[in-house]
Amino acid sequence: MPKLEMRAFVLFARKARTAPDFSLNDLPGSGGRLDLVARCITQALWLSHKLRDDASFFAVLNGPPSPPITIAFYASLLQHVSPDERNLASWIKIALEKLEQNPKVKEWIKVQRGIAVMRCGIEELVSDLHSSGFSIYILHERGKDITELEFDFNSCFVLGDHLGLPKKIENFIARKCGAIKVSLGPTSYLASSCIAVVNYLLDRGARSAQSIR
Amino acid sequence: MPKLEMRAFVLFARKARTAPDFSLNDLPGSGGRLDLVARCITQALWLSHKLRDDASFFAVLNGPPSPPITIAFYASLLQHVSPDERNLASWIKIALEKLEQNPKVKEWIKVQRGIAVMRCGIEELVSDLHSSGFSIYILHERGKDITELEFDFNSCFVLGDHLGLPKKIENFIARKCGAIKVSLGPTSYLASSCIAVVNYLLDRGARSAQSIR
Repeated sequence: MPKLEMRAFVLFARKARTAPDFSLNDLPGSGGRLDLVARCITQALWLSHKLRDDASFFAVLNGPPSPPITIAFYASLLQHVSPDERNLASWIKIALEKLEQNPKVKEWIKVQRGIAVMRCGIEELVSDLHSSGFSIYILHERGKDITELEFDFNSCFVLGDHLGLPKKIENFIARKCGAIKVSLGPTSYLASSCIAVVNYLLDRGARSAQSIR
Repeated sequence: MPKLEMRAFVLFARKARTAPDFSLNDLPGSGGRLDLVARCITQALWLSHKLRDDASFFAVLNGPPSPPITIAFYASLLQHVSPDERNLASWIKIALEKLEQNPKVKEWIKVQRGIAVMRCGIEELVSDLHSSGFSIYILHERGKDITELEFDFNSCFVLGDHLGLPKKIENFIARKCGAIKVSLGPTSYLASSCIAVVNYLLDRGARSAQSIR
């Protein structure tokens, strides 16, 4: 049986609220752009009528009051989760409540099947993903063109929200994890559009590779 | 000055509510998947930090109680509109209210700058776009591979929601407007992902063309 190709997306959400007190009726404001985070989750994990079986998504929340917090979503395990912003944000809220109830736990806390939360930042998260076998790529306008690269079996794409990835973090990930900067071209896209395009290009690449085998 | 390339997306939303009585807190249910419609608008019209200057989006609502209704969004004209589902759905609600206030008008009614609404169905809409100079393409899993096609300057992409485009409408558009079926490959993507990918491929294609000129 062939080994399953895995892909992961890590979003650095600079202002995303790290307490469950935000309003589901105002994700851009009170949630610190949790609408954007939700759209990225949808583009990372969903296909038409089903979830991908190869994708995971990590939202690293860095807004007030207690950053950083990471919430993990594993497509192949998710149940009772819908791809709309309000539903996804409600799961983020539940994850943050779970964390508040377990203030001393330093490991991943299960929120429900396919969703986990941990008090950890992007450096620790990406280092862990790298240690567990993922090749790390940073989506960056000034990176190498994505169509010129061949991707490893387990690829992890790190990207920033509308405010971008801090330079310090870019440098850390490049140095510590050997991350390569990858560009979708000179146009600057929404984070969710970037994820949709990367998924598409990997799907096409994977298929071309299969046809040669 | 070069003529501006235009692109349009037409979404056939089979169950989308055609009265303003839906709840912004339940777009999937009471809105008849208006969450999906909103995500398509975002992927069609937005870039990072700005709106595209070349794109328009037409949501053809076909749910109860009084289908069909088409709402048009012109990226270059939009103001005070955000890319989150709730905000976009609130503009759809306002458009439907405007239509209820003007039951006898048979033309486009301006909702606000960049948004207009009309009581018309997809056949009439796509025929009009074709007459006004757009080449029509139907996004379809069994179409010609998108990477093998060259697109015209003014391209209009027609796609279905999670329930797809009715066969009868496909046939009408093909016969009346010479529409070509275009495929993104064997994977079946979310409508919003399809739009993100088409925009990306057109951007790349347009750039390659420019570099040869």
